[in-house]
Amino acid sequence: MATAATGMKYQDRDDLLCVSFPHGATVAGVFTRSRTASAPVDLCRKHLSLGKKARALLVNAGNANAFTGKAGDRAMAMTVDSLSGKLGCARNEIYISSTGVIGEVLEADKITAHMDAIVDDLSGGGFAAAAQAILTTDTFAKGAVRRVHINGTEVTICGIAKGSGMIAPDMATMLAYVFTDAGLSQHALQSLLKEAADSSFNAITVDSDTSTSDSLMAFATGQTEITDLHDPCLAEFRAAFQDLLLDLAHQVVRDGEGASKFITITVSGAEDDRAAKVIAFSIANSPLVKTAIAGEDANWGRIVMAVGKAGEAADRDKLEIIIGGQKVTAFGMAVPGYDEAACTAHLKGQDIDITVDVGVGEGQATVWTCDLTHGYIDINADYRS
Amino acid sequence: MATAATGMKYQDRDDLLCVSFPHGATVAGVFTRSRTASAPVDLCRKHLSLGKKARALLVNAGNANAFTGKAGDRAMAMTVDSLSGKLGCARNEIYISSTGVIGEVLEADKITAHMDAIVDDLSGGGFAAAAQAILTTDTFAKGAVRRVHINGTEVTICGIAKGSGMIAPDMATMLAYVFTDAGLSQHALQSLLKEAADSSFNAITVDSDTSTSDSLMAFATGQTEITDLHDPCLAEFRAAFQDLLLDLAHQVVRDGEGASKFITITVSGAEDDRAAKVIAFSIANSPLVKTAIAGEDANWGRIVMAVGKAGEAADRDKLEIIIGGQKVTAFGMAVPGYDEAACTAHLKGQDIDITVDVGVGEGQATVWTCDLTHGYIDINADYRS
Repeated sequence: MATAATGMKYQDRDDLLCVSFPHGATVAGVFTRSRTASAPVDLCRKHLSLGKKARALLVNAGNANAFTGKAGDRAMAMTVDSLSGKLGCARNEIYISSTGVIGEVLEADKITAHMDAIVDDLSGGGFAAAAQAILTTDTFAKGAVRRVHINGTEVTICGIAKGSGMIAPDMATMLAYVFTDAGLSQHALQSLLKEAADSSFNAITVDSDTSTSDSLMAFATGQTEITDLHDPCLAEFRAAFQDLLLDLAHQVVRDGEGASKFITITVSGAEDDRAAKVIAFSIANSPLVKTAIAGEDANWGRIVMAVGKAGEAADRDKLEIIIGGQKVTAFGMAVPGYDEAACTAHLKGQDIDITVDVGVGEGQATVWTCDLTHGYIDINADYRS
Repeated sequence: MATAATGMKYQDRDDLLCVSFPHGATVAGVFTRSRTASAPVDLCRKHLSLGKKARALLVNAGNANAFTGKAGDRAMAMTVDSLSGKLGCARNEIYISSTGVIGEVLEADKITAHMDAIVDDLSGGGFAAAAQAILTTDTFAKGAVRRVHINGTEVTICGIAKGSGMIAPDMATMLAYVFTDAGLSQHALQSLLKEAADSSFNAITVDSDTSTSDSLMAFATGQTEITDLHDPCLAEFRAAFQDLLLDLAHQVVRDGEGASKFITITVSGAEDDRAAKVIAFSIANSPLVKTAIAGEDANWGRIVMAVGKAGEAADRDKLEIIIGGQKVTAFGMAVPGYDEAACTAHLKGQDIDITVDVGVGEGQATVWTCDLTHGYIDINADYRS
């Protein structure tokens, strides 16, 4: 892998990442469900459906090349042509992501001007520089690594991610990439990625907004392909893969725009797991809940409100709310004499735990979010200027 | 009507409103769809289903008596008993609303202590004092009046409302009451209220949160009851009633917590009217759109994002966005050479108009919202303290 500085938007930093893969690398992807997805997202979906192999990934930061019409398509085609030509591979073995401002056509020449240099440099880069090059409003680079064994052989899983706003499920983070030297068939890799995304990137939210560019991709370069995800030899790998995705997803939440708290919300007792997730996200996305936590105010009435507005079954008179391990409500009202001071002390910390049992069934889900602060307004009321 | 100061939460202001109606007044109501609705909401729904007549409305501000379990039910029963005893009417002719903090049991004795005085004073009050008495975090009292003719006789429609946070559809404002000396059957009044709510209170949002206490009620005191809402003699009245509800709903948005802009969002070209409303609310509730407008930044890419995340059909390559009368996008990209300065000038005003055509059908809807500012964080990160 290698990085370069195009100067397209950012000065004095790398903003272009190129990763090449050996022949035969498999690729999987999960993308935004936005109805106005960006051109690069459409391209990756198309290439995934055509070929099942990847030779290179190219990511630029600062311009999302989203909602740029035919001109945006042409700019993307130029970069794909340039890179596939340089690497001598098929066009559909190239995967592209762009992140940044929406609505400005990508200046492809600023990317292609660096193509020779970046390809010549591919042996020189590392994950730290790669994680840095894809950032936009992030305040820190995000990465994780796990080493496990498959049939006695050590394999590595490495991931990088970026994103701190417009983070909401379907898909969550704007960009995340996982690389492994394990060998998995495309089908097994896609199934694994989908499964792990549901309990990680699709279980986080910063501001409920969903990007046009969200892309989570996985690349596996091992030569011996395991085709069955449920093969017992994959058990350790599968768990580590899920753990790594969750780690990356949590890093994105911790870097949520203006975030001062990391909030874990667990809902139990719902009709089913789907309903539990809907309720958990209703709490996690409520501006009133998020501002109360920013204010370190044990205003649990707002949690009751958010449960109510979710529209899923909940028994008001059995509802239990636990904040930082302390039960604050039971039997449809405050627990008499509950220790509000202890509750407030918990809220003064950085890691906030909220557990809610809605008293109707066995459904359960956990989601993660951050608080809503003045910092969020600062960042977003003046992003483009 | 009359008002009184209970001192329950607020000092030096009236916080209790009582309105009495002559025998035979009809009543209609539309309430929150929250699954954790407050005790007073449950009571109003029950009374509406039992009797169809109202003798009095009692509203207190500062305590929502929501999520207060059996103790909350008892407190409410005490106030109902006290008022129905005093007026000599059936319990189910009494309607109650409570607004304010969730989760603290209502101190009923502080209300019943004023019952004699407030009932004796019923001939003395006016709408201005009534509109003041029901406020919580509002910064101004909200009211509207219309005078029209039914069969040559002048009738009056008077409305008051409160609410500035937790304002989102189903229902929208926390509390709103409409009074008229026209005569309508309960069924006609309920149909009229439902119809007018859909295009007014159910078409506004401040922060996407939904209160446990939202109540919109209408009372008609005329002796000659018109039973058919579509009777031609009601045409002028019906239009004025809708106009008054929209007026009140707009006042609530203008007083949105921390609001500095009043935003009108019209979506056309959607699959149907329902889809258009979903897309319009997706734009109206997007924190990124709301902060961009707060920052007077013509970042229309965020509008594209919000259209995409709504999940309804939209043709990215036909999407048109018009800000302040100026077309900024067409054919899936920015209009070449569009006047961003004029667009920014519009955003510097107080009334912002956004029109979006999604290019797939004939569906249309308009919703209203406000921007998301530091003021919202100030108010909500420290509301209870």
